Amino acid sequence: MRPVLAFLLLFLPAAAQVPASDQGLLHLASTPNARLHPVPVRAVSLQPGFWKSRQDTAIRNSIPTLLALLEEKGTLDNFRRLAKPNSGIPRRGPLYTDSDLYKWLEAAAWSLAVQPNPKLEATIDQTIDTILAAQEPSGYLNTWFTGDRSSLRWTQQTSGHELYCLGHMTQAAIAYYRVTGKRKLLDGSTKFIDYLVRDFGPSPKQPLLTGHPELELARAELYRTTGNRQYLDLAAYLLSGVERERLKLSNRDLVYLFSGKPFTGRTQFEGHAVRALYAATGAADYYLETGDPAYRRTLETLAADLSSSKMFVTGGVGSRASGEAFGEPFELPNRQAYTESCAAIAGMLFHQRMLAATGDARYADLIERALYNGINSGMSSSGTLYCYRNPLAASASDRIRNPWYDTCCCPPNLQRTFAALGAYFYSTSRDGLWVHLYDNSTLDWRLESGTALKAQVQTGQPWRGDVQVTLTPAKIEEFTLYFRIPSWSLKTTVLINGNPAAEQPKPNTYLALKRAWKPGDKVTLTLDVETRLVYANPRVSEDYGKAAIQRGPILYAAEQTDNPGPAVFDLAIDHRNPISAEFLPSLLGGVTVLTHKGLALDSSTGLYAYQPPSASKPAAMTLIPYYAFHDRGPANFTVWLPVR
Amino acid sequence: MRPVLAFLLLFLPAAAQVPASDQGLLHLASTPNARLHPVPVRAVSLQPGFWKSRQDTAIRNSIPTLLALLEEKGTLDNFRRLAKPNSGIPRRGPLYTDSDLYKWLEAAAWSLAVQPNPKLEATIDQTIDTILAAQEPSGYLNTWFTGDRSSLRWTQQTSGHELYCLGHMTQAAIAYYRVTGKRKLLDGSTKFIDYLVRDFGPSPKQPLLTGHPELELARAELYRTTGNRQYLDLAAYLLSGVERERLKLSNRDLVYLFSGKPFTGRTQFEGHAVRALYAATGAADYYLETGDPAYRRTLETLAADLSSSKMFVTGGVGSRASGEAFGEPFELPNRQAYTESCAAIAGMLFHQRMLAATGDARYADLIERALYNGINSGMSSSGTLYCYRNPLAASASDRIRNPWYDTCCCPPNLQRTFAALGAYFYSTSRDGLWVHLYDNSTLDWRLESGTALKAQVQTGQPWRGDVQVTLTPAKIEEFTLYFRIPSWSLKTTVLINGNPAAEQPKPNTYLALKRAWKPGDKVTLTLDVETRLVYANPRVSEDYGKAAIQRGPILYAAEQTDNPGPAVFDLAIDHRNPISAEFLPSLLGGVTVLTHKGLALDSSTGLYAYQPPSASKPAAMTLIPYYAFHDRGPANFTVWLPVR
Repeated sequence: MRPVLAFLLLFLPAAAQVPASDQGLLHLASTPNARLHPVPVRAVSLQPGFWKSRQDTAIRNSIPTLLALLEEKGTLDNFRRLAKPNSGIPRRGPLYTDSDLYKWLEAAAWSLAVQPNPKLEATIDQTIDTILAAQEPSGYLNTWFTGDRSSLRWTQQTSGHELYCLGHMTQAAIAYYRVTGKRKLLDGSTKFIDYLVRDFGPSPKQPLLTGHPELELARAELYRTTGNRQYLDLAAYLLSGVERERLKLSNRDLVYLFSGKPFTGRTQFEGHAVRALYAATGAADYYLETGDPAYRRTLETLAADLSSSKMFVTGGVGSRASGEAFGEPFELPNRQAYTESCAAIAGMLFHQRMLAATGDARYADLIERALYNGINSGMSSSGTLYCYRNPLAASASDRIRNPWYDTCCCPPNLQRTFAALGAYFYSTSRDGLWVHLYDNSTLDWRLESGTALKAQVQTGQPWRGDVQVTLTPAKIEEFTLYFRIPSWSLKTTVLINGNPAAEQPKPNTYLALKRAWKPGDKVTLTLDVETRLVYANPRVSEDYGKAAIQRGPILYAAEQTDNPGPAVFDLAIDHRNPISAEFLPSLLGGVTVLTHKGLALDSSTGLYAYQPPSASKPAAMTLIPYYAFHDRGPANFTVWLPVR
Repeated sequence: MRPVLAFLLLFLPAAAQVPASDQGLLHLASTPNARLHPVPVRAVSLQPGFWKSRQDTAIRNSIPTLLALLEEKGTLDNFRRLAKPNSGIPRRGPLYTDSDLYKWLEAAAWSLAVQPNPKLEATIDQTIDTILAAQEPSGYLNTWFTGDRSSLRWTQQTSGHELYCLGHMTQAAIAYYRVTGKRKLLDGSTKFIDYLVRDFGPSPKQPLLTGHPELELARAELYRTTGNRQYLDLAAYLLSGVERERLKLSNRDLVYLFSGKPFTGRTQFEGHAVRALYAATGAADYYLETGDPAYRRTLETLAADLSSSKMFVTGGVGSRASGEAFGEPFELPNRQAYTESCAAIAGMLFHQRMLAATGDARYADLIERALYNGINSGMSSSGTLYCYRNPLAASASDRIRNPWYDTCCCPPNLQRTFAALGAYFYSTSRDGLWVHLYDNSTLDWRLESGTALKAQVQTGQPWRGDVQVTLTPAKIEEFTLYFRIPSWSLKTTVLINGNPAAEQPKPNTYLALKRAWKPGDKVTLTLDVETRLVYANPRVSEDYGKAAIQRGPILYAAEQTDNPGPAVFDLAIDHRNPISAEFLPSLLGGVTVLTHKGLALDSSTGLYAYQPPSASKPAAMTLIPYYAFHDRGPANFTVWLPVR
């Protein structure tokens, strides 16, 4: 046994001894305040359908082409140059490029759990060697703060992204360890973190700040992986925000960074959206481990702030380009929406923790909303174009889908989400199995009693409402099946082996079916995918008098490409006429489009007038799923449409 | 005769020989393409009423207190330190503070034309001495690019503001020269400009760029003042935008600066709003002097772009905080509106030139809209608080009115506008007199035939519609009186000496009354100040389904201070109920307030719902003039209200 492993085992509580391959995206098996427990990524196989197609695209097209781009842009060379000091290779890109590679590594690692690929695994191993060859004996590893910039280490904690990069390194390392059992990268990141634990912390140690929160999440997960409580303690120190004076933080820093003051003093989301949501996600991880009631109160306050006043109908987050920031409550502009892909993903990560803590279906509903819409929009159907921004309206001159961003955070963030996606579908609890999201998939895992359990979901989701779940427990056993009833499914029917269930499904709750389940039992849900108009709170200034159109979990948009008549920005919904749905197998890989006899407003009458705008002209309207905006090339599109 | 004066006279065309004291804000007497000609500032006396009160506040409170602040913040010391190199006085403030003092000087100078004040004049003389003591023998004068920064002169033309400061120095110099006949500051600024003329221009001279356009205006006016064509030629060179390569300008520079490419290649307003509008104003001055048809076409294109898609209903301009910039067409957010006071003023300056060129009442209407609303809001009733931003909605936590800004461009810009305000009310043309704006005032000037003419306007504007104009020409003479019929006066009646005029007034045109006018003739206009709902083009996303309320030239706002019931952001107009007007002499110095039995929308129902917002509760509503928002302290307010 290697000494380092022997050392770790001293700290291991029972649950950390769960084999790495049985650990999920989060390893909550012995987490005291987790009501729900994730299943391993490998336990879920997406079957042909909506998300399988997206996952395949991410794994087959997106992950390999992004690696080539990271090579081309120097992200890997930034490591290689440190192992060969006189190579003459220049440092390229912004100071946080290391994190882009780490996030790509995490995506690639999870993909191996879904689609084993020896060639990719060999590439990952080589990449890890490249990375670790640049690590210093102390454990420090960062390709920016080297050479002439070495003296700047830890002097730019508000902007330097050193801990941000380390956080993503750790997450990649944990993913690769869980999928392959290989711990080389994990040992490397642990070495760096051990250096931090030794030298940084409350006075008299050196002060530390996550200028871009992210390490908090990674530390909590590393604690779960290793059982070393010091990692959680350092997360607690970071969240405690006690270093304002030693680090001379300004009031603006405390808002913008969402760091540097006690997390439990927060009352609203503000500042940089991704920073704030990563901080809250890390704090939720901390709560899950500690049960600190002050954290729980703050987390619930923030979750309510987000869902009641700062989230776009697409699940997107972040209203302002300036500072990539949250806005005021109800400040949810459409064309100007910043809605960074990373922020929508960060919102999902936050809700994932809140769901694990509470089992509250509302969090799963928010995950679904973001996943199908404001996250899904971030990657094109080709898998090679990405959105940094995901606005709710844009013009043909806006270039929103691009193959590369110098700040390349969103592409690998989308990839790691899609690669591991099945793991978001199911959880276990002491008393049973939870089904959060519905798509064709199989689960091959076990109940917490230890009984092996297979489940197969066959569905027409998101286009149809039929969902059939076939259970194959290894033996007859009483447990509860929790099915999420989406908020949009106002009338749901449930059959068990063809007979109506006594339990009444309610939207936005889990339907709990406690039975002695036997192999071959079938539960049939019929979700209500009726097309609905969604109205915003009247305080949302840009959406007043308008509606978005939703069918099942899918938000729709009117794009000029499908509407050769009036400008889409002039289209309005005619409340007298229905909206029809039709599945078009050849459009955008197979989508349900909506058609409607709407109206065209007259926008030719000057900027201001003493008469309200008139809408005398009927106008046929076709709507496509929002996530596919600009997928066929830039064109005017809009989600919110006036209702007349 | 001093040599410099003899030199200048060689270049003087006839009109430049008009005495300085007869020259207006613009001196267009011999400008070939000016249809209208300004009257001198001193020729108009505002009489007790709406604008007299604002002008008095600017002159009595605002101008003296701002000088004290400029002293306190080091703006004058920045000059003094250059005359005393070893004084140890530090350079303070951003690099453009010189312009703040120059603009204050211009305001103070114009104020002397309205209210002679020997003490203020002595202060101005001392200030001019302070300024000129810092001027270098070459003519160069800038308090930032001195000492260690001397080597940076002309190396930072996109950001350095050297020409911007010189432009404001020149405008101040011209104002003081026209009001007092004193030319010390004029000689100083001319010396600097002569240095530019000598060393800068097309290759092989050094390249020059107005990184912040402003000098173009000043050069055109200096040409008009001195007759030296070289000054206009250099303005032409700046507008020609030929130095892109020599100055290595990026595409972003060309947009943001609205400079650096040929002005005649512009097709829309974009980039920094004040920069773009100053550039267009300078180009309009250039057109007025040259008649270049390509300039005319571009100016009309830009004017239409502004008024048809980029101007707030308050006359405010500039949609985005980021880059202080214009947005896309119809991007006119309310709370997020940037609407810098300087941009509204710049819009007025642009329209002032377009009005002089065309005599088109639409430009005067836009001047009026901005002046009463989006400019007037910029200075508090105390005269000591200023708005940098003038949004159309704000919360009680927004601190919009402040005594000082480190970028102190708006306060003196407002002051110079109010100090010289009467000069915007009247023009002459070959065939008569034009009345653009209606407030109690007297004009003491002459027709272009040379006949002395007095005119007295007595009116209840802006609260009432009655306007009586009494004419006193020195002799009976046939000429045309042009009265602007505002766009909002849909039904106007006109009496001449008590009898209905044959001519039919049309909104947004000038009513031309050609008569042999004799002393004592009275024209009585009754303008239609009925309260009206104003609707925005449906492309203005935030205003859809809403209306602003206008009465005469005044835009109204609902502020929480007057509305103790529901939150103003929940208020809606009930189209079934009337809006009543009442003059309250004790409120805000005497204003007409509007009251209405409106509705309160229910904003308590979550962020998104499948039902539209309901408005079951009646809610009494009181509205005050928009320009007075936050004048009684910060409070939620909004201009645009849903109509139910």
